[in-house]
Amino acid sequence: MYLPSWLSQLYRGLSRPIRRTTQPIWGSLSRSLVLSSQRRNPEFSSFVVRTNTCGELRSSHLGQEVTLCGWIQYRRQNTFLVLRDFHGLVQVIIPQDESAASVRKILCEAPMESVVQVSGTVISRPAGQENPKMPTGEIEIKVKTAELLNACKKLPFEIKDFMKKTEALRLQYRYLDLRSFQMQYNLRLRSQMVMKMRDYLCNLHGFVDIETPTLFKRTPGGAKEFLVPSREPGKFYSLPQSPQQFKQLLMVGGLDRYFQVARCYRDEGSRPDRQPEFTQIDIEMSFVDQTGIQSLIEGLLQYSWPNDKDPVVVPFPSMTFAEALATYGTDKPDTRFGMKIIDISDVFRNTEIGFLQDALSKPHGTVKAICIPEGAKYLKRKDIESIRKFSADHFDQEILPVFLNTNRNWNSPVANFIRESKRPELIRLMETQEEDVVLLMAGEHNKACSLLGKLRLECADLLETRGVVLRDPTLFSFLWVVDFPLFLPKEENPRELESAHHPFTAPHPSDIHLLYTEPEKEDVKLLSHILQALDYGAPPHGGIALGLDRLICLVTGSPSIRDVIAFPKSFRGHDLMSNTPDSIPPEELKPYHIQVSWPTDSKAAKAH
Amino acid sequence: MYLPSWLSQLYRGLSRPIRRTTQPIWGSLSRSLVLSSQRRNPEFSSFVVRTNTCGELRSSHLGQEVTLCGWIQYRRQNTFLVLRDFHGLVQVIIPQDESAASVRKILCEAPMESVVQVSGTVISRPAGQENPKMPTGEIEIKVKTAELLNACKKLPFEIKDFMKKTEALRLQYRYLDLRSFQMQYNLRLRSQMVMKMRDYLCNLHGFVDIETPTLFKRTPGGAKEFLVPSREPGKFYSLPQSPQQFKQLLMVGGLDRYFQVARCYRDEGSRPDRQPEFTQIDIEMSFVDQTGIQSLIEGLLQYSWPNDKDPVVVPFPSMTFAEALATYGTDKPDTRFGMKIIDISDVFRNTEIGFLQDALSKPHGTVKAICIPEGAKYLKRKDIESIRKFSADHFDQEILPVFLNTNRNWNSPVANFIRESKRPELIRLMETQEEDVVLLMAGEHNKACSLLGKLRLECADLLETRGVVLRDPTLFSFLWVVDFPLFLPKEENPRELESAHHPFTAPHPSDIHLLYTEPEKEDVKLLSHILQALDYGAPPHGGIALGLDRLICLVTGSPSIRDVIAFPKSFRGHDLMSNTPDSIPPEELKPYHIQVSWPTDSKAAKAH
Repeated sequence: MYLPSWLSQLYRGLSRPIRRTTQPIWGSLSRSLVLSSQRRNPEFSSFVVRTNTCGELRSSHLGQEVTLCGWIQYRRQNTFLVLRDFHGLVQVIIPQDESAASVRKILCEAPMESVVQVSGTVISRPAGQENPKMPTGEIEIKVKTAELLNACKKLPFEIKDFMKKTEALRLQYRYLDLRSFQMQYNLRLRSQMVMKMRDYLCNLHGFVDIETPTLFKRTPGGAKEFLVPSREPGKFYSLPQSPQQFKQLLMVGGLDRYFQVARCYRDEGSRPDRQPEFTQIDIEMSFVDQTGIQSLIEGLLQYSWPNDKDPVVVPFPSMTFAEALATYGTDKPDTRFGMKIIDISDVFRNTEIGFLQDALSKPHGTVKAICIPEGAKYLKRKDIESIRKFSADHFDQEILPVFLNTNRNWNSPVANFIRESKRPELIRLMETQEEDVVLLMAGEHNKACSLLGKLRLECADLLETRGVVLRDPTLFSFLWVVDFPLFLPKEENPRELESAHHPFTAPHPSDIHLLYTEPEKEDVKLLSHILQALDYGAPPHGGIALGLDRLICLVTGSPSIRDVIAFPKSFRGHDLMSNTPDSIPPEELKPYHIQVSWPTDSKAAKAH
Repeated sequence: MYLPSWLSQLYRGLSRPIRRTTQPIWGSLSRSLVLSSQRRNPEFSSFVVRTNTCGELRSSHLGQEVTLCGWIQYRRQNTFLVLRDFHGLVQVIIPQDESAASVRKILCEAPMESVVQVSGTVISRPAGQENPKMPTGEIEIKVKTAELLNACKKLPFEIKDFMKKTEALRLQYRYLDLRSFQMQYNLRLRSQMVMKMRDYLCNLHGFVDIETPTLFKRTPGGAKEFLVPSREPGKFYSLPQSPQQFKQLLMVGGLDRYFQVARCYRDEGSRPDRQPEFTQIDIEMSFVDQTGIQSLIEGLLQYSWPNDKDPVVVPFPSMTFAEALATYGTDKPDTRFGMKIIDISDVFRNTEIGFLQDALSKPHGTVKAICIPEGAKYLKRKDIESIRKFSADHFDQEILPVFLNTNRNWNSPVANFIRESKRPELIRLMETQEEDVVLLMAGEHNKACSLLGKLRLECADLLETRGVVLRDPTLFSFLWVVDFPLFLPKEENPRELESAHHPFTAPHPSDIHLLYTEPEKEDVKLLSHILQALDYGAPPHGGIALGLDRLICLVTGSPSIRDVIAFPKSFRGHDLMSNTPDSIPPEELKPYHIQVSWPTDSKAAKAH
């Protein structure tokens, strides 16, 4: 048996994703006909009534008696019918002779998207009628018997137009959306990639897959946790944001290589492209250092990576947090293109330009810039205006566009003065070419980097919408960002600390003393069990958690993580299909000893 | 590299479980030294500082320089130290010479259960000092360097006595309990068995592993569901009791082979051996019939079954629900032994015994009996009294013990009369032998079967405590019970129906019309999304869900499902380690728009 087309590629090694398209849903099925003799192609027709999938039939099946089950994709002139299953499309000939009247009636009268079972013979299409765009385009099915398994009620829209509809409609009728090639592809790729990860961790490296509870205790500062009332008055469980505590307890328990494809919960309210529940590949090891974890993850991604993409090259390059911030203005730099942030403070040490002087005289004061390649050619005056407005509004910062290699200007006397006084030095430092624009700013180091990092991405997007090719969308540039700060000042109150968003939580060896000399102590009452456990022979351990939804989203090139989740919530945390969350009658809250506190301004809503 | 002992057996095929014991925890490590050259033994020392695990070292490692990490199991005369990791134990020689003073100090002063790293050479034990009971008993480690990785605080109890402690203590210090051989074994076996199931479903049969949401809508009659308040006033999610709705929606969506190792939630309050969250191997297929599902599951268990047990024989025998009830008095019969329920109504059709006459004249009236082999020899009068009391108290039923082959009696004139009048017929029907006792009762069919089914198990337990071998504890007698009723009368109100606890939910073809003619209608408002989905081209589909915790419990021979779960809740639903569920300050409930309804009789508790 062989499985040509996209499915076989996926199961052999996960093929390159085909981007969502407004073409008829199954039109973009793989063009290439790959004949594979792979040992372990799964058997898709075991245990069931069908003998074959619709999408697998080829000339090599000619003459075979087959039974197929699928959905009616379309029908032409009551003569041809196209049957679809997850695997693909196949053409079925509706018999015209009188003796087959009952079969004809079934196949001609069933509404589109009805489910039918047909049995018949695989035959060649008449010469000239082959369809090279269709993987099964050389053959068709001469039907002998047909059964209507389930008639489809009239759909609220044409299924082939469905993909053009709003995402809200797609989520409301998710079960129809799942029939699309893209969703089938995404979910199957996800399943395959996770399976390979399990194989790598479990079978190659002796990790133990351990399920940890999701009904647990709240954590300090767990304001984003979901609560679950128990049947004991006033007592609640929390849904954990991650299995962090459990994986450390497992290390204390001597289960020294743990992993879990873990469901995590975070109640972040309305945030785009977040889900209240999401999935992590959660990993922890004992007796390991940072290098060990890095090698493990590099191997994991390399092993589970789709075969038809460029292989993952290991080891990944590494960069310190400080370097990433200084060069790219972010802790997750896109290193597929340049436009790095350049510190040009030295150029202006003795400047007479007032605002630069001011900035440099302050603590951590700097002058920094990025060079936008061909910016003079592709950016419009209104783009620059909007960049300046964004900088002023969100960062309270002045941005100066400077043309170093041309005589253009946007009527900024300061920019012109800078250009004139410092041209050679700046051209050398910024490596500008003709038609480039330099965006220059002065201010505190972190703030300047952060703003220029945002403008770098913003300008890259702008240039690409104007046709400049800056980034290869099929390229994956893995990068380790190391030496993260353990804590950062809280944004809302810089005198307090909060944990930084970092992959490695051990303090840097040279900073350990600060934990004791400068403690900003968290309330640890809620963590007493884990603090106690760490006293009872905890081995040194380390781990990581990969956000699975985002990873699959990147691999499939999907516009949203909702496209790689079977039943996602809307950005407001709603399930639009079932209208969830939903009201509960007060009497059904009684066993949980809770009642609703209605906001005073919406008492009316209660009656409603 | 080879991995002898239990771990290698487990990773090759999951070895026979060793029952929990009060022997020193690691004393029961595998006796047999299996040298395996298996290709895919996992690499347990990749990425980490150790070169080997403690448990794997053998004579073949002699002369090798190794680095080991582990816990100090015990120390003798400041000369020998036994180091433990998940894999086993190894003896380390504490150096006595002056030049190694610092190493000696570390190894002699570290408290038991401290974590240490040692490097040294694998050497032979002196002749006569080998320990054949210890897999590493031919060698020991001559230490060169040692590092104390983490000192263990004094434990609240001796770790070697720990297993004798109460389960509450084990749960409170779960991270210590996890260090035991038995917990390590159970969790690793679970991981391996699930991995093989995934391999079977995903790689062999093309199933797609799909994660479904756990924040969803309540289901009708979902009184046992956990609620999760959202940030919208009065709006709640529910934690699902199973992914039932989603798996059916996936079928509608054309993902025609789905599986998931699914977390399920059921709020059943205090019930022994239940967990508020538990795990199902959840499976659904399109275009399948009952036979297909049965073959799939038979193959799944056969494929994932531990290699060192008797192989699973397929197909499993099959029995109707009616037959199971009539013969074993239950829908989950233990077919490893006889003592079947025999209907002896015909013997008494024309009886003059009043209570039998009465019973037989009523609808579904029967006389039934079970035969207890050697009951006369092994059961005591007080056993029979307790059986009669149980029957009277719980079933309002009279039970008569009858000796057919001996002249013994327990002074029951009715029993004597039955024996005398019907001896030959009853001996033939019941196939009694000398010393057997027959338990006889008259009553309504279902009730009689149900009671005798309970007594059958009760008496089997009794006989086994008296030394009779009835059941082979290592034998797994798989059995399909088919043709379940779709609905059963509610126990508390027999005029209403409730769904029966059955594996197959499709109505029997011959009964389908009753669904329409005799509807007892459930409120379907909460299910409108799924009812709508079923109208839009739902394929015929079928599936099953295996309770994973119970399955692993059976396979490992564990006394409780808590022994196959890393962090189980107590029977009251509490996590004893972290004191969960726990109180939440009222102000932290505000974002969820709920407040606690304190029961009026425990207002004092609130202040507390």
